[in-house]
Amino acid sequence: METDIEIAQSSKMMLIEKIAAKIGISENKLEHFGKYKAKVTIDKKSSEPKGKLILVTAINPTPAGEGKTTTSVGLGDALQKIGKKTAIALREPSLGPVFGLKGGAAGGGYAQVVPMEDLNLHFTGDIHAIGAANNLVAAMVDNHIYQGNELKIDPRRVTWRRAIDMNDRQLRSVISGIGAQANGMPREDGFDITVASEVMAVLCLSNSIDEMKQKLRNCIVGYTFDNNPVSIGDLKAEGAVAALLKDALKPNLVQTLENTPVFVHGGPFANIAHGCNSLLATKTALAHADYVVTEAGFGADLGAEKFLDIKCRMGGLKPNAVVIVATVRALKMHGGVSKQDLNEENLEALEKGIPNLLKHVENIENVFGLNAVVAINTFPKDTEQELRLLKDTCFEKNISVIQSDVWAKGSEGGVALAEKVAAICERPSQLTFAYDLSDTIEEKIEKIVQKIYGGSGTEWTSKAKKTAANLTALGYGNLPVCMAKTQYSLSDQAAKIGRPKDFEVNIRELSISAGAGFIVVLTGNIMRMPGLPKKPAAEQIDISRDGKITGLF
Amino acid sequence: METDIEIAQSSKMMLIEKIAAKIGISENKLEHFGKYKAKVTIDKKSSEPKGKLILVTAINPTPAGEGKTTTSVGLGDALQKIGKKTAIALREPSLGPVFGLKGGAAGGGYAQVVPMEDLNLHFTGDIHAIGAANNLVAAMVDNHIYQGNELKIDPRRVTWRRAIDMNDRQLRSVISGIGAQANGMPREDGFDITVASEVMAVLCLSNSIDEMKQKLRNCIVGYTFDNNPVSIGDLKAEGAVAALLKDALKPNLVQTLENTPVFVHGGPFANIAHGCNSLLATKTALAHADYVVTEAGFGADLGAEKFLDIKCRMGGLKPNAVVIVATVRALKMHGGVSKQDLNEENLEALEKGIPNLLKHVENIENVFGLNAVVAINTFPKDTEQELRLLKDTCFEKNISVIQSDVWAKGSEGGVALAEKVAAICERPSQLTFAYDLSDTIEEKIEKIVQKIYGGSGTEWTSKAKKTAANLTALGYGNLPVCMAKTQYSLSDQAAKIGRPKDFEVNIRELSISAGAGFIVVLTGNIMRMPGLPKKPAAEQIDISRDGKITGLF
Repeated sequence: METDIEIAQSSKMMLIEKIAAKIGISENKLEHFGKYKAKVTIDKKSSEPKGKLILVTAINPTPAGEGKTTTSVGLGDALQKIGKKTAIALREPSLGPVFGLKGGAAGGGYAQVVPMEDLNLHFTGDIHAIGAANNLVAAMVDNHIYQGNELKIDPRRVTWRRAIDMNDRQLRSVISGIGAQANGMPREDGFDITVASEVMAVLCLSNSIDEMKQKLRNCIVGYTFDNNPVSIGDLKAEGAVAALLKDALKPNLVQTLENTPVFVHGGPFANIAHGCNSLLATKTALAHADYVVTEAGFGADLGAEKFLDIKCRMGGLKPNAVVIVATVRALKMHGGVSKQDLNEENLEALEKGIPNLLKHVENIENVFGLNAVVAINTFPKDTEQELRLLKDTCFEKNISVIQSDVWAKGSEGGVALAEKVAAICERPSQLTFAYDLSDTIEEKIEKIVQKIYGGSGTEWTSKAKKTAANLTALGYGNLPVCMAKTQYSLSDQAAKIGRPKDFEVNIRELSISAGAGFIVVLTGNIMRMPGLPKKPAAEQIDISRDGKITGLF
Repeated sequence: METDIEIAQSSKMMLIEKIAAKIGISENKLEHFGKYKAKVTIDKKSSEPKGKLILVTAINPTPAGEGKTTTSVGLGDALQKIGKKTAIALREPSLGPVFGLKGGAAGGGYAQVVPMEDLNLHFTGDIHAIGAANNLVAAMVDNHIYQGNELKIDPRRVTWRRAIDMNDRQLRSVISGIGAQANGMPREDGFDITVASEVMAVLCLSNSIDEMKQKLRNCIVGYTFDNNPVSIGDLKAEGAVAALLKDALKPNLVQTLENTPVFVHGGPFANIAHGCNSLLATKTALAHADYVVTEAGFGADLGAEKFLDIKCRMGGLKPNAVVIVATVRALKMHGGVSKQDLNEENLEALEKGIPNLLKHVENIENVFGLNAVVAINTFPKDTEQELRLLKDTCFEKNISVIQSDVWAKGSEGGVALAEKVAAICERPSQLTFAYDLSDTIEEKIEKIVQKIYGGSGTEWTSKAKKTAANLTALGYGNLPVCMAKTQYSLSDQAAKIGRPKDFEVNIRELSISAGAGFIVVLTGNIMRMPGLPKKPAAEQIDISRDGKITGLF
């Protein structure tokens, strides 16, 4: 069997100007990065989204995999196949996971984005630009302290961390500024992976250079000895930081194996940030294509909730259809089957796991008021009986459900899903948010926990309570909240698979992303800097004499 | 008066494919980065340099400035103007100085490289790729130690530092891996600015992907508890690191204000590394143009010496002419005038400073056996008498000397220089190196100090002596040496301006760049990570609503 990179490398790409022409983007709007990648100039048209927006989300992830990106890509290809003017909008991959466990990818099998190597290795440089922007701020904070500290920044309360696009646990926690007086001010410091930087979230939620500069200006970098927040604006750094992001703000255009246009732009973390591609990419896609398939991080409880309550609210967007990806295998795991037993039919476990899916469908339809369709991403070992049980359960509950097989068959395997999605897009719907911005911070969190997670309520640490009061006093009470929670469970405990009930969510601490414009709610220990595994994927990656890359998978 | 960025932004650029066509590079060899930048595919032709090579170097730098890059650019433009098929090959600027004191630049006045903003802000991403490559190695070293340390790397003797393309003194010296067992192994650590990474030197001295991989494999990252060197090859990282550098290895093509083709590629430090653009860029330029103007870092004692003894030796190159840039102002400073008094005529000081220039000319002609020409980069306050004195002194000594005024006049101000250089290129010459590779490490250093610097000898610390013995025992004795010394003096003491005599050079320590292939000789404290000044240039840099950048100068 061919590997993903072999399939990708044997694909026949079209010149990027031809891809752009498919959705009416003329060549003079493109900045080429070689023959098969381009940045698209931001113009007025980007602010007039008119296409149908299709959100792809999923059940809570399991080690069995759901294939959310694969389904997004395959659905886009299938919509194109049935004659719709289609574009896809996805996140940019970080380098970190490429060299860690994952080896990199954008979709899989016959539903992939290409050129796959470029996408996974620097791409158009956006993430490096974001890292440089983040680190310019950090250098200016420490330089300010070193050069006399006019703003009276407390070195113990610098909240702005440094960033690097690498899985490097060694940098999670460091003491910087040591060794000599000329080396700065010794203090506790640390690095996040670049995609966890607030600069990434700011870029992804900005409609223009001016708006980005305004958001950057508001980013808090730390607190003074008198407990007042210090912002990037106080350091006069927002102009230089925005200049560094000049090109990074422009959406990138590439293609699928079947030459469907794909915007790949921005990739904020799905826990401490909102976890979806840039607003500008989605809007540019919607301005030019009739159907736009996009994706949100993790399961629907985290990814779709934030996509709707944060991105759609800030950007004035509304999905016309929401695809919830599920697999028989993953639902069996939600029913208690272990990974090694997944190849055996197990109807009982499947039945026990299906309520996880049902809860997400209820959320999309009943809480948010949108039209949902379940996509069953088929695997070779799924049995007829299992598929039947899953489909019947959906039918009984009046839930649209379609089998999809795009990994093995490409667009051909997604035609039924595409037709269903196109039909659903014609149905009326009305997006209702899970909470109002005018709710208190506590109310917002409570509503998400009860309505979306199905929990009984929240339990707050005294620290979190105090922070909520502080943030309200500082005038941040009307911002949306960004939940940072385990992706594996509807609850805040990874082990509570399926559809847990009668649980409380522990609100450990809040933190403010004043530039991006949301309050991050930490419900557990959230990793902002991954590490490499014992056998890093990097050991397998190689490049031949003539520049061909192997070992990405 | 217009600023550099205003002149640059009002220039009329030609499409990069037209620039490439000027030197016979066809469009199918280009990877576009927008309309005015491209990477040039490496092909067999790059290994057949046939043009004339012109090295631009200078007297020892002073705060008065010499205008070496400006002269290089203006000379290239002037050669084009007099009908020669010309290309220029320069270093890539680092982001650090852009936000520090310098604000960024590539040449000045009417002798600049464009697009100036892009060049100074990320450009084609090479330096970010080099940073990522450097930091992947660092992450793999620490991950190896964390995951069981099979190679028995001594955490106290990890020599591979992390890199960031920023002026950030706070990161010079850090303790990493602290806070929890899951955060790695606590150890002393630190960051260099990316251009100081050995990966940069490796990239700049490689002729092909395979050669780069081989050099990467040899890079030493630290030592075991048993005192054996550990290499990137031992970590099985060279394939992934080379994959990260796939595009960075390809030379970048841009243009001057007068549309002369310019390769801007690679920018290793001029102290701990060899300080000139990539071998591949120089060779690609020489394969396509009849005249190639290139530049070496700092003064001729450091930059030209390493260009010749390291780069030319490794790459089989030989300059046909060497331009030594001097200014009346800088020579007066070498004669003892302070910066604030430079606008007053001072023939006595000039006469006292000229021997600095003469020593560099003697080195180029008598030690290296090459044809030199002095370019006097004219400033408005230079008096007729001063210019006369400088020229007469050169005439008396049979030294070719030409006034150049490219900053104010562009190519027009460089025609006389271009004609002289073109004539000199026809004269026979024979490159003799300052030392032989078969000399011992001590002999090599001694020869450079005596022949090039004009010193009486060297004084070694016992540490340096021991390291020299160790490196010889490890088999590195036949590598060239890379001197890290103050650029302000021919000696190792910055205050010894002019042409110092009877001095000894203090050899403090040696370090090995086994991948790049040279032994670094440290003669003092060498800064590998600059800091920001009290008023960083970043505070002035801004970007307008429509993407126009201001404040780079």
